[in-house]
Amino acid sequence: MFRNQYDTDVVTWSPQGRIHQVEYAMEAVKQGSTAVALKSNTHVVLATLNRADSELTSSLQKIFKVDDHLGIAASGLISDGRSLCKFMRSECLNHRYVYESAMPVTRLVREVADNAQVCTQRSWKRPYGVGLLVAGHDKSGPRLFYCCPSGNYYEYLAHAIGGRSQAARTYLERKHEEYPDASLDGLIGHALQALDQDFKELDEASLQPYIQALRDAEGGDGGGGADGAAPMES
Amino acid sequence: MFRNQYDTDVVTWSPQGRIHQVEYAMEAVKQGSTAVALKSNTHVVLATLNRADSELTSSLQKIFKVDDHLGIAASGLISDGRSLCKFMRSECLNHRYVYESAMPVTRLVREVADNAQVCTQRSWKRPYGVGLLVAGHDKSGPRLFYCCPSGNYYEYLAHAIGGRSQAARTYLERKHEEYPDASLDGLIGHALQALDQDFKELDEASLQPYIQALRDAEGGDGGGGADGAAPMES
Amino acid sequence: MFRNQYDTDVVTWSPQGRIHQVEYAMEAVKQGSTAVALKSNTHVVLATLNRADSELTSSLQKIFKVDDHLGIAASGLISDGRSLCKFMRSECLNHRYVYESAMPVTRLVREVADNAQVCTQRSWKRPYGVGLLVAGHDKSGPRLFYCCPSGNYYEYLAHAIGGRSQAARTYLERKHEEYPDASLDGLIGHALQALDQDFKELDEASLQPYIQALRDAEGGDGGGGADGAAPMES
Amino acid sequence: MFRNQYDTDVVTWSPQGRIHQVEYAMEAVKQGSTAVALKSNTHVVLATLNRADSELTSSLQKIFKVDDHLGIAASGLISDGRSLCKFMRSECLNHRYVYESAMPVTRLVREVADNAQVCTQRSWKRPYGVGLLVAGHDKSGPRLFYCCPSGNYYEYLAHAIGGRSQAARTYLERKHEEYPDASLDGLIGHALQALDQDFKELDEASLQPYIQALRDAEGGDGGGGADGAAPMES
Amino acid sequence: MFRNQYDTDVVTWSPQGRIHQVEYAMEAVKQGSTAVALKSNTHVVLATLNRADSELTSSLQKIFKVDDHLGIAASGLISDGRSLCKFMRSECLNHRYVYESAMPVTRLVREVADNAQVCTQRSWKRPYGVGLLVAGHDKSGPRLFYCCPSGNYYEYLAHAIGGRSQAARTYLERKHEEYPDASLDGLIGHALQALDQDFKELDEASLQPYIQALRDAEGGDGGGGADGAAPMES
Amino acid sequence: MFRNQYDTDVVTWSPQGRIHQVEYAMEAVKQGSTAVALKSNTHVVLATLNRADSELTSSLQKIFKVDDHLGIAASGLISDGRSLCKFMRSECLNHRYVYESAMPVTRLVREVADNAQVCTQRSWKRPYGVGLLVAGHDKSGPRLFYCCPSGNYYEYLAHAIGGRSQAARTYLERKHEEYPDASLDGLIGHALQALDQDFKELDEASLQPYIQALRDAEGGDGGGGADGAAPMES
Amino acid sequence: MFRNQYDTDVVTWSPQGRIHQVEYAMEAVKQGSTAVALKSNTHVVLATLNRADSELTSSLQKIFKVDDHLGIAASGLISDGRSLCKFMRSECLNHRYVYESAMPVTRLVREVADNAQVCTQRSWKRPYGVGLLVAGHDKSGPRLFYCCPSGNYYEYLAHAIGGRSQAARTYLERKHEEYPDASLDGLIGHALQALDQDFKELDEASLQPYIQALRDAEGGDGGGGADGAAPMES
Repeated sequence: MFRNQYDTDVVTWSPQGRIHQVEYAMEAVKQGSTAVALKSNTHVVLATLNRADSELTSSLQKIFKVDDHLGIAASGLISDGRSLCKFMRSECLNHRYVYESAMPVTRLVREVADNAQVCTQRSWKRPYGVGLLVAGHDKSGPRLFYCCPSGNYYEYLAHAIGGRSQAARTYLERKHEEYPDASLDGLIGHALQALDQDFKELDEASLQPYIQALRDAEGGDGGGGADGAAPMES
Repeated sequence: MFRNQYDTDVVTWSPQGRIHQVEYAMEAVKQGSTAVALKSNTHVVLATLNRADSELTSSLQKIFKVDDHLGIAASGLISDGRSLCKFMRSECLNHRYVYESAMPVTRLVREVADNAQVCTQRSWKRPYGVGLLVAGHDKSGPRLFYCCPSGNYYEYLAHAIGGRSQAARTYLERKHEEYPDASLDGLIGHALQALDQDFKELDEASLQPYIQALRDAEGGDGGGGADGAAPMES
Repeated sequence: MFRNQYDTDVVTWSPQGRIHQVEYAMEAVKQGSTAVALKSNTHVVLATLNRADSELTSSLQKIFKVDDHLGIAASGLISDGRSLCKFMRSECLNHRYVYESAMPVTRLVREVADNAQVCTQRSWKRPYGVGLLVAGHDKSGPRLFYCCPSGNYYEYLAHAIGGRSQAARTYLERKHEEYPDASLDGLIGHALQALDQDFKELDEASLQPYIQALRDAEGGDGGGGADGAAPMES
Repeated sequence: MFRNQYDTDVVTWSPQGRIHQVEYAMEAVKQGSTAVALKSNTHVVLATLNRADSELTSSLQKIFKVDDHLGIAASGLISDGRSLCKFMRSECLNHRYVYESAMPVTRLVREVADNAQVCTQRSWKRPYGVGLLVAGHDKSGPRLFYCCPSGNYYEYLAHAIGGRSQAARTYLERKHEEYPDASLDGLIGHALQALDQDFKELDEASLQPYIQALRDAEGGDGGGGADGAAPMES
Repeated sequence: MFRNQYDTDVVTWSPQGRIHQVEYAMEAVKQGSTAVALKSNTHVVLATLNRADSELTSSLQKIFKVDDHLGIAASGLISDGRSLCKFMRSECLNHRYVYESAMPVTRLVREVADNAQVCTQRSWKRPYGVGLLVAGHDKSGPRLFYCCPSGNYYEYLAHAIGGRSQAARTYLERKHEEYPDASLDGLIGHALQALDQDFKELDEASLQPYIQALRDAEGGDGGGGADGAAPMES
Repeated sequence: MFRNQYDTDVVTWSPQGRIHQVEYAMEAVKQGSTAVALKSNTHVVLATLNRADSELTSSLQKIFKVDDHLGIAASGLISDGRSLCKFMRSECLNHRYVYESAMPVTRLVREVADNAQVCTQRSWKRPYGVGLLVAGHDKSGPRLFYCCPSGNYYEYLAHAIGGRSQAARTYLERKHEEYPDASLDGLIGHALQALDQDFKELDEASLQPYIQALRDAEGGDGGGGADGAAPMES
Repeated sequence: MFRNQYDTDVVTWSPQGRIHQVEYAMEAVKQGSTAVALKSNTHVVLATLNRADSELTSSLQKIFKVDDHLGIAASGLISDGRSLCKFMRSECLNHRYVYESAMPVTRLVREVADNAQVCTQRSWKRPYGVGLLVAGHDKSGPRLFYCCPSGNYYEYLAHAIGGRSQAARTYLERKHEEYPDASLDGLIGHALQALDQDFKELDEASLQPYIQALRDAEGGDGGGGADGAAPMES
């Protein structure tokens, strides 16, 4: 097949004008576990599905706090995600140092995307294999972006990425009219429900304990339970 | 086929004196969605077709403001386009700092093209996979250029690039005598009509709401609706 | 098979979104001998299975003291592990010099993982072929992490890595409820039992001499006998 | 065929002592459109065949002014030509700054050729794919050189390069005795006739409007009409 | 065979988690001539089998004095060994300059092993093809280490490496209980006997002249006779 | 054929201990046109066969003046030769600046050869494809050297290189006893005769005009006529 | 054959633990002409077989004076040898500058060998293709070494390298008891006889003229006649 000829190298175009290695890297996001994000007029919530292999281990941390006003949820190659997170933290720190203010969400998202783009144009690198849901707030309220391995980014009201995220996305679309005016608890409930689409419908009652646990842990980095949801107040 | 032998590397000439990788990168522009640009004696308008995947997401931004007198519309690998946009903004800023005036459109276009040329002559890079419609104005009035992945650029009265741009180009050529003296609203109307060739002929009335919306958003960066048109006054 | 096409290079994605070279490097950990770690509320114990080839030789050192509050046990390519150990010692030293305090375990683990991640994204390097069990204590008590060649890390209550570690893991899971309140001697006993799953059940009496020997050697670097167990008091 | 074995790399000699990649790059010049240059005792004229794709676009600029006394016409990969032009402009500027005089044509031509030679001896570059007709004047009068992708250069009385240049060269040779004493208008006429060999014989009358147009535009950079001819007075 | 696919490159893992190039480099040690080392409570002795090709030549030097308290015997690619020896000398010198004391044997051995490890993780290098027996003494008495091309090192009471070293190792193990209390002459005798296993049993008398010769040459660098044995007093 | 396996790379030895790429580069010299050099006790003369493609062009310059006392004639890839010439000029200039005297011919020749040698030992370069006849004079009188792409150089009384140089060499050897005491005109005559061996025997009379022309042009750089001969007085 | 798989690259080990490229480079020495060296108690003599291609040329210089007390004879790729010679001269010069004394022969030989070793461990270089006979004297009298492309070196009483050196070595071994007390003339005679083994036995009388010629040229660099022998007095 000619396909194989052009797909081993990120600096090689296929005759159809595609860079297969970038497309393959986007597949890596689908290999990750589901991550969900949605926002109301006042809050934005990140949630990931963290399954621990055994009772002896914590699960892999997939939600990272970048700055006081900004957090990310990663799906795919989490070590790549952590590397990008480190870059974001450093950018935010520098911004605070130079301008004495929080880095605007859009600017940071653009920096991350530019960083990812560079990895798609150097022969000795590879595209990042991680998708990032970036949640933050700035003067226009809560913001939610998705940064893709290709170096593109999109703004979302609600989004789900990772393996089996189709069901979550369907849930999010079906209920999206309820989000803008939802309370924080409501948002978290929706996030948990979206994550849970693979399993069963949770009723309000069964969600309550999780929400309560998160309430208590608020301010932490959300990587403790089977599901991690990091609410960010705007 | 011998063809495959010479087309995996940007620093390899084919026996016919062609660099296939550059040609493949130009195919990437055709993979993008349609972008349209046209100018009158006083204005130049950029418009792109932005389809959002769902109700929950904004579409990918494809029109970027570079400086007060200059904007671009990209088709193809938008992350490559954003990377070039970043370069252009930095060039404009430097020019303003050094010369205390806006960077001439032609000079900036040349810088971008030189930048693209370098990527066609280094083994560890790849040609950019994006076509840019650059609109700006200088003392000779509104200018419109097309920057190609090969490192060439062309001046246009009106042009359309990206997938299915053939219909748009046909429309633009058929009506081009009307552009020089068209009003801004007229230009926008033509741009929207050109973009819309794949679908159906819009009558003046159905265009009105879009134009009105744009009027209201004038000064913004044009990435809001399903179609974005960024008028630049000369 | 297409499989071979994408698995000779760490900067090449397979069409399924996997980096085979990273997966192969994780196989290297399974080639190493078993390493076991578990923690109580007050102590964390590292133990490795060290077989000497003959009476004339000491076995390869697999447990390294990094700082006063931190030690690692490696399984896989021990020379890679030593290289990472050197890096960790230097980081701890710098931290003590700059902040006049011990480096937090989580921060160091993150540095190691970031270091490993870089090796998975440069064409002229290869992923580390070693798994590290990192044991330390900070203000929240004893901590235990596993750093994987992929650049991921996980927190554990008890874990076993390396060849034939399955039996050890089964043992550790079966008994894990006893650990939190176990004494140091008890922990060491469990560690030795876990290591010994391939052979036979040791009764308390036959363990006693080893524990006694370790007691005597406490403070040393644990690489003397057939089994090395480095207890770290919190 | 063994031929393919030695022709994918600019740092590989074929057993016959040839560098095929350089030869292939020279083919690129033949892919370009025709460029013509000729000189009298007082003037040297550059002309290129510029076909615009449609009424909406200007054609690609192929004649560049380098300095007050020097211009070039390119055929082949025009973006490569522009890159060399940029280099030439910078060299001329430096010369003026250091020596307060115009850079001698021969020295500049040598610099360009040396630049091209380097690209034929580095594995991570490729030979330039453009032929340059360099026209200038120095104290010995008007000069005309051809710079080849191989890094060689030749002085000419009159030359034509690019696709279908054979007919133009035949015309130039047949009439070359008339050039030394020709007037500027005469030279331009010959240039236009040479360019036009592919089509039909132009009579003096039909040439007049083009010449007149050029007269008017004299001092400009000659990229306006369907044919561009840049006369340089010595 | 798939085996060949993963074994031409030191930065490529095989699917089984092995780096074949490192294993091949270890084969190089077996291509060298036998080197033997053993220690008593007070001395450590290095001996190599040096066969001269003719009466006109000295044999290749395989035992190197690194510092007053430290020497090495190499087997395999002796030029690689000399390169490492140079590195060790420089390290010892620096240590003496900075700390005004002899470099501890273990620290130097670790530096050498780290150096070797780096060569197993860079695509533009190759693993060293030499095994080093490092003999020295520090405050705990005589020490003996073996540094392997893989970057691992082991402490030994007595060891033999190189081609046909199996017979020597068998001899060393059979007699190892005699070493701790052996005199220097006794140790040398054992070393020569071990080296000689390939040929015949030497009786005490026939060893005497060699020992006497070494006695006389003590302090030299031991590369003179057919067998070189460098005793190091602790 | 195994031959092909070792001949695409300048850093690869063939099993026979040859570097085929260097041999191929020497073939390039044979692709060039003939260059001839010979010396008497007082003069050394360089001559090359320059055929112009048409009446409109000068031929490629193949004889270069390096310094007042030194010139070269190149055969093969003339652009490579020009690059070496530039290097030689710079060396001579530096020598004059530092030592206030002409650079000795032998030292310069050695520098050139060392430069060529480097190109035979780096994977990202290729051997120069040009042979240089270096003529100069120092205190021992006129000197004549041949610098080969392999990095070797030879001193000659008379030599001819390039395509069809065999006939010229035969002529030079047959008449070599006449050279030491020949006049400048006589040397030039011999040079022209040697160049002309492919065609016919020239009689003294028919040579006269060329010699006269050269006489007139003496001091120039000898690239004017169909044959260029640069006499250097010692 | 698997052989071909591992022998195109100097950083690739064969499964047998060999680096074929280094072995191939040693073949290059056998491609050179014979070089002979032998020493008495007071002198060391270098001689090479220099055949000139014709009466018009000097032969390639193969014996180089490095410093007043040191000279080398090369066989194989002479341009590589010259490059090493340049390195040796620079080392000797530096030594004289820093220590105000001649560089010890053994130290210089070690530097050369280390230099050669580096070329066997970098992917972008190749092993030197030249064998060097290094003759010098220090306080222990005349010294003679052979430096091999592999980075090894050997001390010799007398040695011959290059093509057809077997006969010379046989001669040298047969007569080696005569060397220690031989006069300079005697040594030179032996050297010439050894070189001449391929042809016929020379009697004392026929050698006399050569020796006389050398006597006269003593102090020169020995590259004049058909055979060059450079005596070095200790």
